[in-house]
Amino acid sequence: MTEFDLIRQLSSRFSVPDGVIGIGDDCAVIGDTLVTTDLLAEGVHFLLDGISPFDLGFKSAAVNISDIAAMGGLPKYAFLSIALPTVNDGWLAAFSDGFASCCHRYRVTLLGGDTSASAGGIFINVTLMGECPHGTALLRSGARPGDLICVTGTLGDSAAGLRLIQEMADQVGHDENVLLHRHCHPEPRVDEGIALRNCPGVHSMMDISDGIAADLPHILEASGVGATVDVATLPLSEELRRLCASRSWDPVDLALCGGEDYELLFTIAPGTQPPVPCTVIGSITALDAASALDASASRITWLGGKPSYVGFRHF
Amino acid sequence: MTEFDLIRQLSSRFSVPDGVIGIGDDCAVIGDTLVTTDLLAEGVHFLLDGISPFDLGFKSAAVNISDIAAMGGLPKYAFLSIALPTVNDGWLAAFSDGFASCCHRYRVTLLGGDTSASAGGIFINVTLMGECPHGTALLRSGARPGDLICVTGTLGDSAAGLRLIQEMADQVGHDENVLLHRHCHPEPRVDEGIALRNCPGVHSMMDISDGIAADLPHILEASGVGATVDVATLPLSEELRRLCASRSWDPVDLALCGGEDYELLFTIAPGTQPPVPCTVIGSITALDAASALDASASRITWLGGKPSYVGFRHF
Repeated sequence: MTEFDLIRQLSSRFSVPDGVIGIGDDCAVIGDTLVTTDLLAEGVHFLLDGISPFDLGFKSAAVNISDIAAMGGLPKYAFLSIALPTVNDGWLAAFSDGFASCCHRYRVTLLGGDTSASAGGIFINVTLMGECPHGTALLRSGARPGDLICVTGTLGDSAAGLRLIQEMADQVGHDENVLLHRHCHPEPRVDEGIALRNCPGVHSMMDISDGIAADLPHILEASGVGATVDVATLPLSEELRRLCASRSWDPVDLALCGGEDYELLFTIAPGTQPPVPCTVIGSITALDAASALDASASRITWLGGKPSYVGFRHF
Repeated sequence: MTEFDLIRQLSSRFSVPDGVIGIGDDCAVIGDTLVTTDLLAEGVHFLLDGISPFDLGFKSAAVNISDIAAMGGLPKYAFLSIALPTVNDGWLAAFSDGFASCCHRYRVTLLGGDTSASAGGIFINVTLMGECPHGTALLRSGARPGDLICVTGTLGDSAAGLRLIQEMADQVGHDENVLLHRHCHPEPRVDEGIALRNCPGVHSMMDISDGIAADLPHILEASGVGATVDVATLPLSEELRRLCASRSWDPVDLALCGGEDYELLFTIAPGTQPPVPCTVIGSITALDAASALDASASRITWLGGKPSYVGFRHF
């Protein structure tokens, strides 16, 4: 068992009551309540000199709100736990401002939390509760052969922002600022998620936190299907294209493999008009029986390129 | 602002909807749902060589279940976040066994969580959801002058167990084992909490996590009242009395000031028969106007002794 299997292995020792959905989607579902929890660890998810305290506070709320959006829910209540090695009034005030700013933007109310000293680094855990009418939450398991695969927004911007931080870029102009902002200040797609949940042709959904090369397989495995993705259709921002051209970075690789876009990835029946701006990047395919049984086989056929690696790389 | 004010100060920037209770009690209350979250940090709440991984897993669930018990709720669902510096299969398996053991005992289902690497020590955050019929949760704010102050079980045992760990006691007999078990393996009073919630004469309740010298003032402040506590009536276990006699420790000080008893502290109208085994340790008094306004004044009159300090001392 690795630490990353812990929750899944532990959860297998519990039987989940009828009407409740546990591990495996972006949130747990209990009747009309959605619940998600995310841990951010200094040196793993963020570096103190790589993100302002305001942005860290904002992002701590945003990544959880995105999990609610990923199932079509309305975020409602937050619980914040934080362990801090030293007390710095200015840092705490800015962190609080950022957290409150994100919560207020998405009409989320802080209802509780816990604080602690820390013998090693900052740890932040947020639990977010949201609402979604019973039985309507969009799961990862609903994709059907023939569905179109769509994403909101643009991909790879956050990963480019992270790379700028890691390389300590000193020439920062408009494009760098846009991409850094996308990394430090993600905007969860709550309204879009609700619109998609209300659209009958939308069959499955999740948010993109680890890059589509790592995230799309979650939908494919949960749904028992495969996919074809046309790399040429990936939505790339003008800022990402220009920056990558000037630095000889591969924008497609950032878009496929980079994490923390917090855009929505969903599948929709062909012929259905998507209710939100989005880009079609491929389609869902049926798996033959042999492929469905072979856990090591890739479920994705990449057209016009392919990811250099799968999974968001932490620091 | 200190880190311990963070949640309270942050919460003041949010307006809580009607029918919802936020900061200030053991749990938040949302309709008939109770929610609590607790953070355990290595080197602050526990030392790795002071508690077995099984007990740490058990305790991580238990301290949160106790917060649900403290309002008379039925614990239902858990979410576990854990950050780990290194992966040790045996440690993780034992931690999981302990966590699952506590959840199973109290019929709690794990529905989600998060894991992370850690650059400094183990951090565990548990969020617990429970149920309590709307409007019936026992709050800290209901104590009335004349109420008797009661506690379940015995006090100070856990603090004695902690002191044994801190002093690395090497002569461990029956009494030491009982007290160490009380520290490492607390048993939240869920059935007692529900019985007390169903008893009309019970006016206020909380659990004892920081010692009654630190915890009783929370009820007094929330209720706008004072108290008289007769130290001679504090319930002390035979094991604690014998151990303290043999080591020249003060059992009363451990009972008043020691933390992590996870017993219930409640106030009840005189003449009401408590529905659970308990000990009366004092009574609620009216405050005169001057005392009510003086935040620095002690609200407690101690008879026959008094606490040497207030508040659970972390490592």
